[in-house]
Amino acid sequence: MAKVLIVYFSKTGNTGKMAEYVQQGAREAGAETELKDINDTSPEDLLNADGIIMGSPTYYGLPSNEIKELIDESVKFHGKLEGKVGGAFSSAANTGGGNETTIMAIIQALLIHGMVVAGTSKGDHYGPVSIGSPDERVKSQCISLGKRVALLAEKLTC
Amino acid sequence: MAKVLIVYFSKTGNTGKMAEYVQQGAREAGAETELKDINDTSPEDLLNADGIIMGSPTYYGLPSNEIKELIDESVKFHGKLEGKVGGAFSSAANTGGGNETTIMAIIQALLIHGMVVAGTSKGDHYGPVSIGSPDERVKSQCISLGKRVALLAEKLTC
Amino acid sequence: MAKVLIVYFSKTGNTGKMAEYVQQGAREAGAETELKDINDTSPEDLLNADGIIMGSPTYYGLPSNEIKELIDESVKFHGKLEGKVGGAFSSAANTGGGNETTIMAIIQALLIHGMVVAGTSKGDHYGPVSIGSPDERVKSQCISLGKRVALLAEKLTC
Amino acid sequence: MAKVLIVYFSKTGNTGKMAEYVQQGAREAGAETELKDINDTSPEDLLNADGIIMGSPTYYGLPSNEIKELIDESVKFHGKLEGKVGGAFSSAANTGGGNETTIMAIIQALLIHGMVVAGTSKGDHYGPVSIGSPDERVKSQCISLGKRVALLAEKLTC
Repeated sequence: MAKVLIVYFSKTGNTGKMAEYVQQGAREAGAETELKDINDTSPEDLLNADGIIMGSPTYYGLPSNEIKELIDESVKFHGKLEGKVGGAFSSAANTGGGNETTIMAIIQALLIHGMVVAGTSKGDHYGPVSIGSPDERVKSQCISLGKRVALLAEKLTC
Repeated sequence: MAKVLIVYFSKTGNTGKMAEYVQQGAREAGAETELKDINDTSPEDLLNADGIIMGSPTYYGLPSNEIKELIDESVKFHGKLEGKVGGAFSSAANTGGGNETTIMAIIQALLIHGMVVAGTSKGDHYGPVSIGSPDERVKSQCISLGKRVALLAEKLTC
Repeated sequence: MAKVLIVYFSKTGNTGKMAEYVQQGAREAGAETELKDINDTSPEDLLNADGIIMGSPTYYGLPSNEIKELIDESVKFHGKLEGKVGGAFSSAANTGGGNETTIMAIIQALLIHGMVVAGTSKGDHYGPVSIGSPDERVKSQCISLGKRVALLAEKLTC
Repeated sequence: MAKVLIVYFSKTGNTGKMAEYVQQGAREAGAETELKDINDTSPEDLLNADGIIMGSPTYYGLPSNEIKELIDESVKFHGKLEGKVGGAFSSAANTGGGNETTIMAIIQALLIHGMVVAGTSKGDHYGPVSIGSPDERVKSQCISLGKRVALLAEKLTC
């Protein structure tokens, strides 16, 4: 049974809502899940997970500095996250507002940790994007991401 | 009076429609404009323009290979486009489908040519994105891009 | 035994040399490998592989249009590459010349196909970069990429 | 006379050294310059400059969270930086280590502020990259960036 950690920062609640849907997907795929607000998360939490999914609002086309701070602090475990499975999602105020680049920024950080990332051929390819409050489409994309990471983590690390 | 070239590839007509709106914006800002299908465009056309705007559908998160071919061929004028003004736009099948990365890919190529690129603090920050057929929001973003490039080209090259 | 396909475009021979090293790594990890020049590659070849690694020189911060053409043509198998393992590498004329964005561009396309991509915590994180002719450092990065993809493909698809 | 602000974060001194070279270039181009450590910089400082250049070490393929925090806080002036000129540079431990994506991440943020960014057809196209301690090549790239931003800011805002 894979352990999947979902870490998020949310100010308006949109990213937080997405995080819950991602957790739901991971759970449905049989994973043990943990949902953590960035403010309650330490680099140590990353060590204990088989899959790590990070969510952030789109702030200037990049993850919020709270998310970036966790990533920077995780350097103390550089090399220790190798082979774990990663994923990312983002909420944004509008289309073309930097949501994809936010997700790709997180994915880049995860790749630099030596992690494994899977896209999807259906829907939000890099990771789920919500324009404003998450609707049914976004919900299903988030559930799909949770499942994808959980199943891959199960295959790779269990 | 600045000369603005809009080059586009369009299969379904969505990117072509966006291109017309971009042209409208550049014209309204007082530029002399040229709208060219990628199939009628040669690297020489890039030389004669003060502003160059490229539009492509989102194909695997990147501009179509027809657009990329023009970019590759433009190497024969490497250094000659320095200081010209650039811009990019894209149409895509869905949100999160790679539209922003397509626009950023074109912008990267333009920066490598030494060109000058302006974002916008309002709306589609990197460049206009249409999800499916361009609506009123997209139209106004395209017009805004055309104006932005025309005015900047006027300031910088005339 | 996983099948790993290495597809490359090479004009000066640098990317081709890297491709051979990547093949060597995949072979050492026990994979059945195929090394193909882009001019001899069709979308069908992608279907038959468990792991697909693409290499391109850095042309304006992006893969060459020959590589992009294969990617565009692969749309006829959209959804069929889901879950396969991917990787990318690039040679460039100089540091800061667009090599990382070239690799990330390929990775984005592979993610959009629903493929699985692994970074590395050691060395060239997104994929091997050669500045000019590949030296010993580049050789070892290429071998490492070949192994990484082969082992992951073995785990995931066999 | 344009005012150019260079903001940087530096731990090992490499990015700080680059910042000094960038300042030298801006000065040689006739600009009034200010060099500020990120810890002494507030969003208000961005308002007063015609050109803003940000430098960061490469931390997981992105600017350090200190730089990101300034960017996030600058939202209080969203729209007020429109039309200013921007630039970015980064130092990294190794080639392929995320330096280009760090620079592009900063550039994305600047574009979202509606700023104007110029690449260069010579050398480090997106912005200067130092692998380890800055050498003569890096020095000249940094001076070139300083000049580029200063001259463009002079043209656009004075």
